[in-house]
Amino acid sequence: MTDLLIKNTRPMAGPKADIRIKGGRIAEIGPDIAPQGEPVEDAAGALALPGFVEAHTHLDKSLIGWPWYHNDVGNELLDMIANERAVKKEWGIDPHVQSMRHALQTVAYGATVIRSHVDIDTEGKLRPLEGVMKTAELLSDVVEIETVAFPQSGLMIRDGTTDLMDQAMTMGADVVGGLDPCGVDRDPKGHLDFIFDLAEKHGKPIDIHLHEPGEMGAFSMEMILDRTEALSMAGQVTVSHAFCLGMPDPVRVAGLVERLARNDVRIMTTAPASSEAPAVMQLREAGIKVGAGNDGIRDTWGPYGNGDMLERAKFIGLRNNFRRDTEVALAFDVCSTGGAEAMNVEPPKLEVGARGDVVVVTGESLAHAVVTHAPRHLVVKAGKVTARNGAALTEAP
Amino acid sequence: MTDLLIKNTRPMAGPKADIRIKGGRIAEIGPDIAPQGEPVEDAAGALALPGFVEAHTHLDKSLIGWPWYHNDVGNELLDMIANERAVKKEWGIDPHVQSMRHALQTVAYGATVIRSHVDIDTEGKLRPLEGVMKTAELLSDVVEIETVAFPQSGLMIRDGTTDLMDQAMTMGADVVGGLDPCGVDRDPKGHLDFIFDLAEKHGKPIDIHLHEPGEMGAFSMEMILDRTEALSMAGQVTVSHAFCLGMPDPVRVAGLVERLARNDVRIMTTAPASSEAPAVMQLREAGIKVGAGNDGIRDTWGPYGNGDMLERAKFIGLRNNFRRDTEVALAFDVCSTGGAEAMNVEPPKLEVGARGDVVVVTGESLAHAVVTHAPRHLVVKAGKVTARNGAALTEAP
Repeated sequence: MTDLLIKNTRPMAGPKADIRIKGGRIAEIGPDIAPQGEPVEDAAGALALPGFVEAHTHLDKSLIGWPWYHNDVGNELLDMIANERAVKKEWGIDPHVQSMRHALQTVAYGATVIRSHVDIDTEGKLRPLEGVMKTAELLSDVVEIETVAFPQSGLMIRDGTTDLMDQAMTMGADVVGGLDPCGVDRDPKGHLDFIFDLAEKHGKPIDIHLHEPGEMGAFSMEMILDRTEALSMAGQVTVSHAFCLGMPDPVRVAGLVERLARNDVRIMTTAPASSEAPAVMQLREAGIKVGAGNDGIRDTWGPYGNGDMLERAKFIGLRNNFRRDTEVALAFDVCSTGGAEAMNVEPPKLEVGARGDVVVVTGESLAHAVVTHAPRHLVVKAGKVTARNGAALTEAP
Repeated sequence: MTDLLIKNTRPMAGPKADIRIKGGRIAEIGPDIAPQGEPVEDAAGALALPGFVEAHTHLDKSLIGWPWYHNDVGNELLDMIANERAVKKEWGIDPHVQSMRHALQTVAYGATVIRSHVDIDTEGKLRPLEGVMKTAELLSDVVEIETVAFPQSGLMIRDGTTDLMDQAMTMGADVVGGLDPCGVDRDPKGHLDFIFDLAEKHGKPIDIHLHEPGEMGAFSMEMILDRTEALSMAGQVTVSHAFCLGMPDPVRVAGLVERLARNDVRIMTTAPASSEAPAVMQLREAGIKVGAGNDGIRDTWGPYGNGDMLERAKFIGLRNNFRRDTEVALAFDVCSTGGAEAMNVEPPKLEVGARGDVVVVTGESLAHAVVTHAPRHLVVKAGKVTARNGAALTEAP
């Protein structure tokens, strides 16, 4: 099942070609490739794009499959965090079931790689991580899922969370997470010292949520950079959100960007419309690896989102005022090849030797496919068809 | 054809009911209404919403139906304006054909009212307005189209434009338009004096594009308010975009908002992700009438947009950080009833006596319909079915 021939497609919206996948890897791209007994899919002239990379989401907490959640919670961050813990308990949300539904919906839209932050707190303890790790294992031939141990309810402000974080890493979480060391934890030194120590102890990278705006966010980012330098962790640290890089002080931002680039710190963005956000072009031009994600979808935080990384590429374009085709192509790259590079996993690429992660989608041009985010014809993971006509082939619970 | 019975629907996501339209107006809403020989549509439990109102678009310039336009133009406003004039000429764009395509696509997504700005310049002269007015006439029983005479290439900086604007109003344009009196025209006094005089001469209202950011925009807005007060034009003036109301100076903005409310100046927003934008909740709480629009779609300015006002409601929600169901409902209202009120046309409402402008769409709740902007089952204008399953019933050229 890991051999496949995709006929009659336009790789990256270029000239028509066929794509042969052999043993899960792209073996040949060119015109008129003859079948050799492998399964054949006719793309009917649709585009072929490399697999999509959902580099920042929360698989454990979406409410997909539940009746509509009427949201009337306050807009304060701590209100939303407390509300979420309460709803998860009251409704009896099962992180394994929810992560299966969420991951397969994301696959149906074209994802072949997902990085999921997973709540680690003193109420849910390690159950969310168990649930998402079980999903990752069950779907291992459908989508590559990385887990981040994420102290959503705070680390220093909730006794017992640091122990749970350590246990989460021992259990096999792939990445150490963190969250607003000033804004939520009120102890930036304590928070950052802990997560960098934990990363060193387990030999794992870091991906820290940093929503803190303006100068406070810049201060936290500097403390992250200090530790990255002191511990020689270049290439091992990611800052998600990084709203502070959107602050209206170009000189201050340029200084941070230069230091991020020097330390190969990666940035994950959701291209939010309602807050400041990093300028994707500026980061890429500085050589910073950038990924993107849909963040939580359809959860107690908000009603938006569906797991579609092609729509996320559109949001990146809209947020960054990308109008040229080359700019929209950059937004797409961040949601595919570039996102995997930011994650330090093998990047999907339409070239011989790369893993056979391919999405077939209607479109006249790459920008057209992005702005219309038309239904996907076919999603292929390492040569295996995982979704067809917008529906995953694996059934969700 | 202006009688219709819609069975088995949930008006505004409330309890199940039927809707009877008689002579183009809603005659009855309630359970189990018996047919009286009129056509019957079964909504199969889907929501009924009032017709959508596209209150700011440019019907004359989209490239719908053309091969993909590869955009590589500069990001300066005047570059984009010049590029557009060149492409329209080179491609031989017919404003009537384009406006038919664009309007019918917008109808397919649920619009029953459209306000279109139409370029008036010394190259296209009055042809775009002729084309859009012909479309408005041809589609008069499908969608109500208002035209705004819009000096896209500048008014004072291009000799002959003022005469054309006067001719456009004589021809029957519904609204006097304007554009960035400082940023584009470099003569705020000249520009504003002219358009207010023209409005007075023809007895028509004003809708002026104001992209100018920060203090420059506030300055232009004050000059607009000065004239609105001096000429007693309360309720007759609209500012589209009004980016300056998003500037980070709450006291300055509050002063402008108070004065806009006092003069019943209306605001049209596109809820742009890449620039500052008015806070919709703040405006509504101040009593200001707010409408929304998709602006130009798929044109030489950018590749985005499709005419869907339900997706625009989602963008308003995302831009304004609306998470609660009540907030998303407000975003919807701006794209429907509230938008028509801002335009000073009869507002679509699901109540007895209102015009029979109804959209049937899948959704568990109103917020669900907004965030998924699912395909429309049925669009009804004054009792006439204008679109079914996402396709307009009138054929576009």
